Amino acid sequence: MADAHPTQGAAHDGCPPHPFLIEPLLRRCLEEDLGHGDWSACGAIAPDQIGKGRIVVKETGVVVGLGIATQIFALLDPAFRCTAAVEDGMVIEAGLPILSLEGSARTLLMGERLALNFMQRLSGIATLTRRYVEAIADLPAAVVDTRKTTPGLRLLEKYAVRMGGSRNHRFNLSDAAMLKDNHIALAGGITAAMARLKAQVPITTCIEVECESLAMVQEAVSAGAGLIMLDNMTPEAIREAVEWVAGRARLEASGGVTLETVRAIAETGVDYISVGRLTHSAPALDISLDVSGD
Amino acid sequence: MADAHPTQGAAHDGCPPHPFLIEPLLRRCLEEDLGHGDWSACGAIAPDQIGKGRIVVKETGVVVGLGIATQIFALLDPAFRCTAAVEDGMVIEAGLPILSLEGSARTLLMGERLALNFMQRLSGIATLTRRYVEAIADLPAAVVDTRKTTPGLRLLEKYAVRMGGSRNHRFNLSDAAMLKDNHIALAGGITAAMARLKAQVPITTCIEVECESLAMVQEAVSAGAGLIMLDNMTPEAIREAVEWVAGRARLEASGGVTLETVRAIAETGVDYISVGRLTHSAPALDISLDVSGD
Amino acid sequence: MADAHPTQGAAHDGCPPHPFLIEPLLRRCLEEDLGHGDWSACGAIAPDQIGKGRIVVKETGVVVGLGIATQIFALLDPAFRCTAAVEDGMVIEAGLPILSLEGSARTLLMGERLALNFMQRLSGIATLTRRYVEAIADLPAAVVDTRKTTPGLRLLEKYAVRMGGSRNHRFNLSDAAMLKDNHIALAGGITAAMARLKAQVPITTCIEVECESLAMVQEAVSAGAGLIMLDNMTPEAIREAVEWVAGRARLEASGGVTLETVRAIAETGVDYISVGRLTHSAPALDISLDVSGD
Amino acid sequence: MADAHPTQGAAHDGCPPHPFLIEPLLRRCLEEDLGHGDWSACGAIAPDQIGKGRIVVKETGVVVGLGIATQIFALLDPAFRCTAAVEDGMVIEAGLPILSLEGSARTLLMGERLALNFMQRLSGIATLTRRYVEAIADLPAAVVDTRKTTPGLRLLEKYAVRMGGSRNHRFNLSDAAMLKDNHIALAGGITAAMARLKAQVPITTCIEVECESLAMVQEAVSAGAGLIMLDNMTPEAIREAVEWVAGRARLEASGGVTLETVRAIAETGVDYISVGRLTHSAPALDISLDVSGD
Amino acid sequence: MADAHPTQGAAHDGCPPHPFLIEPLLRRCLEEDLGHGDWSACGAIAPDQIGKGRIVVKETGVVVGLGIATQIFALLDPAFRCTAAVEDGMVIEAGLPILSLEGSARTLLMGERLALNFMQRLSGIATLTRRYVEAIADLPAAVVDTRKTTPGLRLLEKYAVRMGGSRNHRFNLSDAAMLKDNHIALAGGITAAMARLKAQVPITTCIEVECESLAMVQEAVSAGAGLIMLDNMTPEAIREAVEWVAGRARLEASGGVTLETVRAIAETGVDYISVGRLTHSAPALDISLDVSGD
Amino acid sequence: MADAHPTQGAAHDGCPPHPFLIEPLLRRCLEEDLGHGDWSACGAIAPDQIGKGRIVVKETGVVVGLGIATQIFALLDPAFRCTAAVEDGMVIEAGLPILSLEGSARTLLMGERLALNFMQRLSGIATLTRRYVEAIADLPAAVVDTRKTTPGLRLLEKYAVRMGGSRNHRFNLSDAAMLKDNHIALAGGITAAMARLKAQVPITTCIEVECESLAMVQEAVSAGAGLIMLDNMTPEAIREAVEWVAGRARLEASGGVTLETVRAIAETGVDYISVGRLTHSAPALDISLDVSGD
Repeated sequence: MADAHPTQGAAHDGCPPHPFLIEPLLRRCLEEDLGHGDWSACGAIAPDQIGKGRIVVKETGVVVGLGIATQIFALLDPAFRCTAAVEDGMVIEAGLPILSLEGSARTLLMGERLALNFMQRLSGIATLTRRYVEAIADLPAAVVDTRKTTPGLRLLEKYAVRMGGSRNHRFNLSDAAMLKDNHIALAGGITAAMARLKAQVPITTCIEVECESLAMVQEAVSAGAGLIMLDNMTPEAIREAVEWVAGRARLEASGGVTLETVRAIAETGVDYISVGRLTHSAPALDISLDVSGD
Repeated sequence: MADAHPTQGAAHDGCPPHPFLIEPLLRRCLEEDLGHGDWSACGAIAPDQIGKGRIVVKETGVVVGLGIATQIFALLDPAFRCTAAVEDGMVIEAGLPILSLEGSARTLLMGERLALNFMQRLSGIATLTRRYVEAIADLPAAVVDTRKTTPGLRLLEKYAVRMGGSRNHRFNLSDAAMLKDNHIALAGGITAAMARLKAQVPITTCIEVECESLAMVQEAVSAGAGLIMLDNMTPEAIREAVEWVAGRARLEASGGVTLETVRAIAETGVDYISVGRLTHSAPALDISLDVSGD
Repeated sequence: MADAHPTQGAAHDGCPPHPFLIEPLLRRCLEEDLGHGDWSACGAIAPDQIGKGRIVVKETGVVVGLGIATQIFALLDPAFRCTAAVEDGMVIEAGLPILSLEGSARTLLMGERLALNFMQRLSGIATLTRRYVEAIADLPAAVVDTRKTTPGLRLLEKYAVRMGGSRNHRFNLSDAAMLKDNHIALAGGITAAMARLKAQVPITTCIEVECESLAMVQEAVSAGAGLIMLDNMTPEAIREAVEWVAGRARLEASGGVTLETVRAIAETGVDYISVGRLTHSAPALDISLDVSGD
Repeated sequence: MADAHPTQGAAHDGCPPHPFLIEPLLRRCLEEDLGHGDWSACGAIAPDQIGKGRIVVKETGVVVGLGIATQIFALLDPAFRCTAAVEDGMVIEAGLPILSLEGSARTLLMGERLALNFMQRLSGIATLTRRYVEAIADLPAAVVDTRKTTPGLRLLEKYAVRMGGSRNHRFNLSDAAMLKDNHIALAGGITAAMARLKAQVPITTCIEVECESLAMVQEAVSAGAGLIMLDNMTPEAIREAVEWVAGRARLEASGGVTLETVRAIAETGVDYISVGRLTHSAPALDISLDVSGD
Repeated sequence: MADAHPTQGAAHDGCPPHPFLIEPLLRRCLEEDLGHGDWSACGAIAPDQIGKGRIVVKETGVVVGLGIATQIFALLDPAFRCTAAVEDGMVIEAGLPILSLEGSARTLLMGERLALNFMQRLSGIATLTRRYVEAIADLPAAVVDTRKTTPGLRLLEKYAVRMGGSRNHRFNLSDAAMLKDNHIALAGGITAAMARLKAQVPITTCIEVECESLAMVQEAVSAGAGLIMLDNMTPEAIREAVEWVAGRARLEASGGVTLETVRAIAETGVDYISVGRLTHSAPALDISLDVSGD
Repeated sequence: MADAHPTQGAAHDGCPPHPFLIEPLLRRCLEEDLGHGDWSACGAIAPDQIGKGRIVVKETGVVVGLGIATQIFALLDPAFRCTAAVEDGMVIEAGLPILSLEGSARTLLMGERLALNFMQRLSGIATLTRRYVEAIADLPAAVVDTRKTTPGLRLLEKYAVRMGGSRNHRFNLSDAAMLKDNHIALAGGITAAMARLKAQVPITTCIEVECESLAMVQEAVSAGAGLIMLDNMTPEAIREAVEWVAGRARLEASGGVTLETVRAIAETGVDYISVGRLTHSAPALDISLDVSGD
């Protein structure tokens, strides 16, 4: 594994969530962990004691969250200093330091757990994502995420997915429309549902149609769908759909994809493969803080 | 596996987080998923269309989140009806329905993803917890959680841990004090740190001391610590500490505990075993929604 | 003028903003108008005094806001009753009542101003929108709105635009991407900017390119733009672009469009015409409350 | 037209809303426009790209909002620089720059729309206000605003009215009391209503009485009203009231006042003329941003 | 002592703060007391256990807060029932019950402390206020409060003052203007300060001037002040000011007023006497909850 | 009286509430006092006028709130300067200045009242606390506070108690568990309640049992209670409990303790004496601001 975004060029940083947008979340999470105050740090350590520390990865993986950790400490104490040794999205080997910390020892101890909780989770997602991406790196299909993210953390988890080298699907229910089986059933079929929906959505809104058979795919294409989800189809069925559509719409395979099955799906020629477990079941990457008194 | 809380008695429901306390979180998470509105549901489905559905577990596990799912749909639409077929904390076999839904089809579709995201994650935590609990069920040691929870979801994840049959460690930095290696180093040793801290904390606050050697354990007991964490010790070292302490303090083993190692640790006679991966690395339990139009 | 949404069919209500999503806004606006309390109503009128009233349009126009007014009174007092005589989006003649109110006289007086302020503004937008829509009703072009909305009221104002018979452009900067002149200049041209952006955005995100000349339109089509904004072009230039593009991309005309110029633009064959003044300069529709004591 | 507040003296800046008080509003409005992030700016432009721009008025009018625009950019990025060329309340001729911007190109593009939306609306209000003020500049009557402001923007819109040279009426229902026809009817007449209300309100609270006839005016004066609103009276009736009251109370004319009718009303000798359309129907002033990459 | 508001008549309830306006405060205070949950109530008591209780006054005083207590329990549990035996503002003798409670025993125990904390404090304020009011009940002067209230509780404490039979001074800095010694010094004297301020404030805003000598009073009257505060003057000086002003302005005596000095001040003929200790130093009234299991 | 925390050592500052945690409270309180703006300061004083002032104690007492006052002014205006002459927790004699202020005269006047309201209240609590502490300074018993604090201000009031030399009891219902008479009755006795509760609470949670008789104390000790509240017992009964318990549990006396009775209770040998009136009935300490123009 090498740098996680070699193709992005010098002009790009992967569009991290703007600090302005995640500050309210970080404030609430700090309040959650601080309760009415940190008795251990404030009761045992002098207010002017300086502390230094290094955040270190304990297992090799894609690191994400350096900016978020920095923002957490800054919310507690604007004078606290964080210095990054690497960049979000890089693959770091076990044992290497990634962020140096220096400032009030109380602040260091108060912010530690939240910073690590975020970094471990986001790096875990990016590391798992990268494994999927690498499994099909020589094929044109792209891995994409889903809305199966941790409630409250979607911006950050989708950013971790990008840092793992994957692309994002829609962020929320207003970002794009998707006609699933239930919508289609309740609306009287794909054609009727598409007609009604196309008259309502903003002119910039993408409409995706979920299909379970080639017949549904054919109806969706006729109705003007530009993006079609192939739900829980076998590689054979996916291949058949790819051939029939022949570029008239983009195609996304979905449903229980694992590291074992992703390659066979990608080989069908489908454009996108969405993988829920990137965000709902990624184990944390082991990251910890080494503190040195002075 | 049988019912997850057989010993709790008829008078008890496991102290679920009060709806009043989690409502702000649920509101923010709904806003996260709705964006500026659900075009698919509102654009394709009539406002007076009724929908029915059942939430079903797809793999056997401990179910948690029935009340939370119910509260989510109620926030969107007070007239929506959820009827639970089981109770939080029960082990449910794959394929069984756990919650029936009926009401506005739009509401059903708008609340679906968030309700499932919560139930999958919390049930995943409870299911993994239960595996640890069962691994040492014949031994007196108790499994406990940590502060390595998902930022923002601590109340819910700690509840899931209880529903898995485990106990909670402190919820936040004000709940209890813990003198870790850094506190001890910066304060000039266990004895000095304990003296200073005991004079500051509320009279109800428990102080735990993290120890890495028997010598530290001995100093902690002398300094009056009622709870001692044995950090990354081998089972042999833990056993030695248990014998030396002989009941004068409660002892907690901690550090990289897995399903493979938990039993050997429990057999040392330690009181508690804290396991970070209960919350930071539990895979989601597969739970989904079956919708029926009418 | 007749009913504002004749083509929407019985299954549809125009996707009004969900009450859950606008409740925080309505609460803040009530707080703004109440200050620390309504001395006039509470000081002069008994708490159990019942009041009745009717909201009446004083000039003919498209009415929007019946649900919002109802929600405002309900936030103050769940027992207050509002009964709508018409539906959002209908054209109502001057003098007709649209909403009957009954309940605590204090509540009636406390909610009056805010309810009217919303209805007047939203109805004003819908009424002006309808004039644009009717001006080109026999042509295929659709009028669309912009992001030039009142800060804080975008969901409601875009809803008013839909109720006036028009379509919405993107709601915010994450909904869709648009490469304007500045982006293009800073990124080194349309082709380079499109390449970079297409690799970053979610797979469902529409990218629009703003063009000021036919050459730019040609480059945008080559770069794969599906939607192109023709910025401040003359009808002749628009027509030329329409002919050259020949359906390979959708085209939007933009820039200083008025009721006087909209028809000539529509006759070029362009797909969309965006009109900022729908939301930034619509005069309020005259709507008032007639109160009857009992 | 010359400087908008020539009489205010060097010591005064027109009491702009304190940044502390409007920061929550500006944050919400930024969140409204950013959604989950600005794909166009972040996806196409490098994070260290510098951008420069100038905000320019495109039609002559009273400019308001320089401080607000500055605060918006500072919320996104404390390092961004805004330099004002003029002051709020000045009349600026079409084509002149009013605010120079320099800093991160991403920030420039992210804050542009919101800053312009505020400035266009507030300057539109101030410009319309000034026309009313100038129409009666040689008469002692003062134009005042109403509570018919945009929900959520009252502080800013009332500030724009002051910058247009006019005075404010009460800001909210607790600021001052007003007995309208409904209060009077429900309370059993002016005398009874005044007696009850005077016993309840703070000792600093002004009570205004709305009157529709000279008889009501006479009763209001007898009951001790210091401020009387003459509702929808003809200039003749207003004049009669002015003469009868003879300075024992201040008088405010109200109801459908336009630029065509304001002068005749002012000539009656009334003290104040309240004009709802200052805030509910002012067209936006055309203001735009010229960006230069550099 | 008898009923606290005998003169208010059947039509009046003393204008309690609207539940809509205090709900956010009550929510935050509940969160403060609950922390992450009530272990005692939830851990020891079954969820379906019913509890009954009565709130009882332990010392004679003016009771305030029945509605607030009711709202607190309703926020926790809409099914909980509170039944008031008396009304806010009544003088209740020691030992009498004032509010009956019935519902979930957990809710009863969770809401108890906050409900009592509010009732004790507000009743303490009302009871002390009443002592001041009674001390001068035969004189025309009215006791008024100040802004020396508990941060965050101003609406409720000012309501308690009204329930004690007193009147309110301004609620906040925008409600009314007051030129204190510092304003006057910095603005170059009363006359100059009044001139400048009168041109800026809303036409409904009362301006009070703080004076320390008869000369200042004379200047204030000349400058058009309608309300004058006599700051820390002796009764003799107050009397002199009363005589000189002779009704041309209302007069308020202020500064260190106690139950011992209030009568001598009132006998001067001054209109109002403001007393900071009504709110900053009132001892709590003893009120407690008697629970009966059922 | 001398310095309030002579035993705390150089390393300690008494654990003041972290600025991050109280900022939301201070913001809301500023909004409460500012309303829609300070007309007096902004209307009469130039924006660039500098003001200086000193906060002075008018009666001898323990001062608390210097950091809070500083934070209040900084929220309004980051450029404002506050310089403390003393430290929180010190006993200051009447007439001495404690905090110097310098900056915008408008800011000085806008923040004055809130800063003083906090300092007066918190210093009043600390001063009263110190009187209790000194009354038993030669005895081993410690005075502790209760949850009878002002709603919303618990962190600050508990800090004031610590600054007065006393210790804190639990901060909220999740901090520690307490089985009161009602819990015990509803749960079927101490033994049953303890058993159930011990199985639910976090392993760090202290459980206190409220007892009204020696028999209850004996049952509580047998059930494993480490902390026992002796409710409204006579000194004789307390002494008897102390002797019987003989160190097997810590004991807290509670109920109507006054300065007159505290010493007799302390002489019983009880560990803690909780005093509700420290926070619910402390009179404010007289503190004021002297302003000098330049």
